[in-house]
Amino acid sequence: MSSPFTGLIAAPFTAFDARGAVNRAAIVEQAAVLRESNVRGAFVCGTTGEGLSLTTAERQTVAEEWVRVAGDKLKVIVHAGHASVAEAANLTAHAAAIGAAAVAVTAPFYFRPGSVTELATFLAEVAAAAPKLPFYYYDIPSTTGVNLPAADVLRRAAKVIPNLAGVKFSNPDLLTLQECVQLDGGRFDVLFGVDEYLLAAVSLGATGAVGSTYNYAAPVYHRMLAALREGDLEAACRHQYGSAQLVRALIDFGGLRAGKAIMKMLGVDCGPVRSPLRPMTDDEEVALYERLRPLDIFARPLRRP
Amino acid sequence: MSSPFTGLIAAPFTAFDARGAVNRAAIVEQAAVLRESNVRGAFVCGTTGEGLSLTTAERQTVAEEWVRVAGDKLKVIVHAGHASVAEAANLTAHAAAIGAAAVAVTAPFYFRPGSVTELATFLAEVAAAAPKLPFYYYDIPSTTGVNLPAADVLRRAAKVIPNLAGVKFSNPDLLTLQECVQLDGGRFDVLFGVDEYLLAAVSLGATGAVGSTYNYAAPVYHRMLAALREGDLEAACRHQYGSAQLVRALIDFGGLRAGKAIMKMLGVDCGPVRSPLRPMTDDEEVALYERLRPLDIFARPLRRP
Amino acid sequence: MSSPFTGLIAAPFTAFDARGAVNRAAIVEQAAVLRESNVRGAFVCGTTGEGLSLTTAERQTVAEEWVRVAGDKLKVIVHAGHASVAEAANLTAHAAAIGAAAVAVTAPFYFRPGSVTELATFLAEVAAAAPKLPFYYYDIPSTTGVNLPAADVLRRAAKVIPNLAGVKFSNPDLLTLQECVQLDGGRFDVLFGVDEYLLAAVSLGATGAVGSTYNYAAPVYHRMLAALREGDLEAACRHQYGSAQLVRALIDFGGLRAGKAIMKMLGVDCGPVRSPLRPMTDDEEVALYERLRPLDIFARPLRRP
Amino acid sequence: MSSPFTGLIAAPFTAFDARGAVNRAAIVEQAAVLRESNVRGAFVCGTTGEGLSLTTAERQTVAEEWVRVAGDKLKVIVHAGHASVAEAANLTAHAAAIGAAAVAVTAPFYFRPGSVTELATFLAEVAAAAPKLPFYYYDIPSTTGVNLPAADVLRRAAKVIPNLAGVKFSNPDLLTLQECVQLDGGRFDVLFGVDEYLLAAVSLGATGAVGSTYNYAAPVYHRMLAALREGDLEAACRHQYGSAQLVRALIDFGGLRAGKAIMKMLGVDCGPVRSPLRPMTDDEEVALYERLRPLDIFARPLRRP
Repeated sequence: MSSPFTGLIAAPFTAFDARGAVNRAAIVEQAAVLRESNVRGAFVCGTTGEGLSLTTAERQTVAEEWVRVAGDKLKVIVHAGHASVAEAANLTAHAAAIGAAAVAVTAPFYFRPGSVTELATFLAEVAAAAPKLPFYYYDIPSTTGVNLPAADVLRRAAKVIPNLAGVKFSNPDLLTLQECVQLDGGRFDVLFGVDEYLLAAVSLGATGAVGSTYNYAAPVYHRMLAALREGDLEAACRHQYGSAQLVRALIDFGGLRAGKAIMKMLGVDCGPVRSPLRPMTDDEEVALYERLRPLDIFARPLRRP
Repeated sequence: MSSPFTGLIAAPFTAFDARGAVNRAAIVEQAAVLRESNVRGAFVCGTTGEGLSLTTAERQTVAEEWVRVAGDKLKVIVHAGHASVAEAANLTAHAAAIGAAAVAVTAPFYFRPGSVTELATFLAEVAAAAPKLPFYYYDIPSTTGVNLPAADVLRRAAKVIPNLAGVKFSNPDLLTLQECVQLDGGRFDVLFGVDEYLLAAVSLGATGAVGSTYNYAAPVYHRMLAALREGDLEAACRHQYGSAQLVRALIDFGGLRAGKAIMKMLGVDCGPVRSPLRPMTDDEEVALYERLRPLDIFARPLRRP
Repeated sequence: MSSPFTGLIAAPFTAFDARGAVNRAAIVEQAAVLRESNVRGAFVCGTTGEGLSLTTAERQTVAEEWVRVAGDKLKVIVHAGHASVAEAANLTAHAAAIGAAAVAVTAPFYFRPGSVTELATFLAEVAAAAPKLPFYYYDIPSTTGVNLPAADVLRRAAKVIPNLAGVKFSNPDLLTLQECVQLDGGRFDVLFGVDEYLLAAVSLGATGAVGSTYNYAAPVYHRMLAALREGDLEAACRHQYGSAQLVRALIDFGGLRAGKAIMKMLGVDCGPVRSPLRPMTDDEEVALYERLRPLDIFARPLRRP
Repeated sequence: MSSPFTGLIAAPFTAFDARGAVNRAAIVEQAAVLRESNVRGAFVCGTTGEGLSLTTAERQTVAEEWVRVAGDKLKVIVHAGHASVAEAANLTAHAAAIGAAAVAVTAPFYFRPGSVTELATFLAEVAAAAPKLPFYYYDIPSTTGVNLPAADVLRRAAKVIPNLAGVKFSNPDLLTLQECVQLDGGRFDVLFGVDEYLLAAVSLGATGAVGSTYNYAAPVYHRMLAALREGDLEAACRHQYGSAQLVRALIDFGGLRAGKAIMKMLGVDCGPVRSPLRPMTDDEEVALYERLRPLDIFARPLRRP
């Protein structure tokens, strides 16, 4: 069975040092785990990267370092979404200047566009800051509060953004996913962002995936995808359930903060999270470890915290 | 490739006559379409059946007639959900008395349970009215406003409902779907209710499906399922997109009311919808017909309205 | 200072006996408390009355008994809202037949009207069952999930409901409240339903009030209203804060169930609540008592549970 | 009748020039209107000021210019809320450095705090950047998506923010408003932010008000407050309804963008809005003018666009 699926892109955590400042040094280690687990790209300063908790200057620092470390081994997509169209445009221009492979931008999330036209206009103003850089719309209603149909957004945006490349789709609405995939003969890249049911999205034609769990659990997804290629849906389903168990544990332990704790269990210390997220306690870290230990899905053996 | 999937169950429309009264006579025709398109059951008086717009007496009439007409050709599941626990229990007892195959009950939707325990207690009170009838929890947050994790509901309900059979899952949350499927070694029946991405749910292990489009478009789903069995995911995806196009048309034309218009195009007049739904105009019916005509997915050729 | 305000209407609890059946006998006692605390009416089978948890037959029983007990001492408004337009019409016809003073109807809450026109059509179908009975639209978005602008609903409904009397407004949107009050020269009765800031609504011109706390705490509202009449806004504000403290306690103890416990502290045993509400434990009752004891706002001295 | 109410604070628009850059020159004119209509302060770079659509540098420029222009005639409160705790702290330090009277900070709105503790921790980190500057929590759930009880936030924040001054309360929940007003013997300043029912909030004890309509319609509020002081609640209610009619017009014409058009009608050109807001068309401006012309509430006569 052939598939248009082109591989996994991780959304790296942003490492902080003990004082809460950005820790660039961790990026080398983070990238090493990605390469050793056959991940093909990094989506930086996104939700997982706490991009919206960073200053503009910090976002630029992180993006630069990832591009430098990635070289030609990893494709780097920079998230440039911001509540302010002006800041988003600045970040987009910067991404182009440092040689990123692409840029992705959310809907603005303080003032929220009320229509597809308003959103497309916003995205076009931002995209114009880097007219040759592939541009992705990043659809993530759970954090932006903007729930406009992504296929309509692509259709409209395509008229005003010549460099529109596709959509990062972090949305459970698989009707709209199909529409994005099939739109205009399948010309858009559709990067799925809900790791815990990647199998569903691949079945429906998603062309790629961006997610936080690919930072440390890519092997289980590779197994799932291999089973799917071999037509063994039962095995694919079983591997996907490994991911589902992981994601439920993440939810129970507070999401992003738990993911950062897993990185430490893999031997890559990404430090604390930034407010308004709250730090993991030692007890929580141990409880999370015990919960995850039975799962054979990780890029490296987990160390007890 | 083997699959636990056991077939399609349609959620029939409730036919009304010109004065707005229940039209029992249409049920024979509705059932005929189901049998000729290889649908194995009917889920009556549910959302599609406008069950919550009927009186208790009307719901009983419809359920009785479906059980009578179905004979041993179709499995009849009666929806007995109600805002009132007492009415829900009455409807459940009635379903058992008339020989329905099973009963399904939503969360109450005026007073809404705030916890899994409160919901399980409510369901147990209802289920006790028919202790030997297979009992399904009907999870449909978009109409009930109750969004409690269905796997937790099953786990808790299993302790207080000995006849618990499974869940009708009308919910886009495919993480929870997987948990329901895998719960307790897979002992529960998980009937998926989002027709437009059935392929996703089957990939993730759903054991059945209940939906409104199986009333008139079952063939495209049978083709999708056959392709999946043969390992041709690309064809399965293409067939599923036929369903997606149908469902987008339904959404654009107001959902349930549009579905009822399609029944008429198939030659089965189910009459108008009941308030608060609004009737289709002639122009809307023609426009819907033109939109659907290119899709080769229906159980019978569509007639122009 | 003159005011259009015409008095308090309580929304009585529905008493249940130990087996959970409706306890009609309690109504005499409930009505006695209302009369002794100068409440002028009863809004029966509404939210506080768990009307939506009752069967249609039970609702009719409760309404009949209230009309009988009230005589000419209390004005009885019957709530006839239901998910089913047909049941709502039956309840409305029944209210007229038994001699209720008025009827009130919510938006349907399973299928929800998507526009003012759809809602007005629904209400008109129901109102037509009692064309001479004063008809109120009951606006309560928190339970129905229907949040259409009530002034627009009145404006539209007035064209199709000759007997439209006004709105029961259980909604924090005081912009719309003002519009309802001022609509068409002030021809509509606007009954405010958020007890904890009645002072605000009276300041903005509300003509009446319906609420659950008037069952047992009317005195504090009478004091507040008297202070307002005397131009002593500071005292009015202080009395209103007594109500606010009460309502925060209700919220902390689960709302309706806590209110029923207070009735028992006043010496009127209304029994348990019906599922999906959960029963108060003995410990909760004592804790609630301790919390309320410092408040000098009740119609009768509170007894320790 | 005495009242703790201390006056109106306008939330100024941020003027842009034809190219979309910040137009500092307009601030002199904006401030003149405020002083001539007896407004006592300016809340800059807030929601009305499109603060979240500006870059950090632009916000600093606007704040500086307002402080310079205001002199000792207007109290300037700077909004320093940001999705990023680090940027919010920078803006707070800057506000102190330029001599602002106070700072106000929203909950973060991309990552949203899930508890009062998380929110208070966030606010404390920001407030620490200017430990001597009066600090307000800006509660505005409609844009932040954070709906934590403000009185609990104040209670908790008071323990970790010695310079906590109060809350800007842009929230229709008047139960919580009362709790904020009464908290700890009334030690906090409670600035109400829902102009269209200021009368309600003043009745309930609010100590001040911050709003967008005070930029151009302060006279109607002064009349309302005077009537209230004189005990003429009926007149107060009538004046407040003038504000209500204005705000409904704003809502119908898109809110902020319509407010900016009104400034132009007053003779103060604040230029266009920034994306994602969409520009007013000429036809919309004329229609808005016709709608507002009958209202005698503005600081200056309206000019036809």
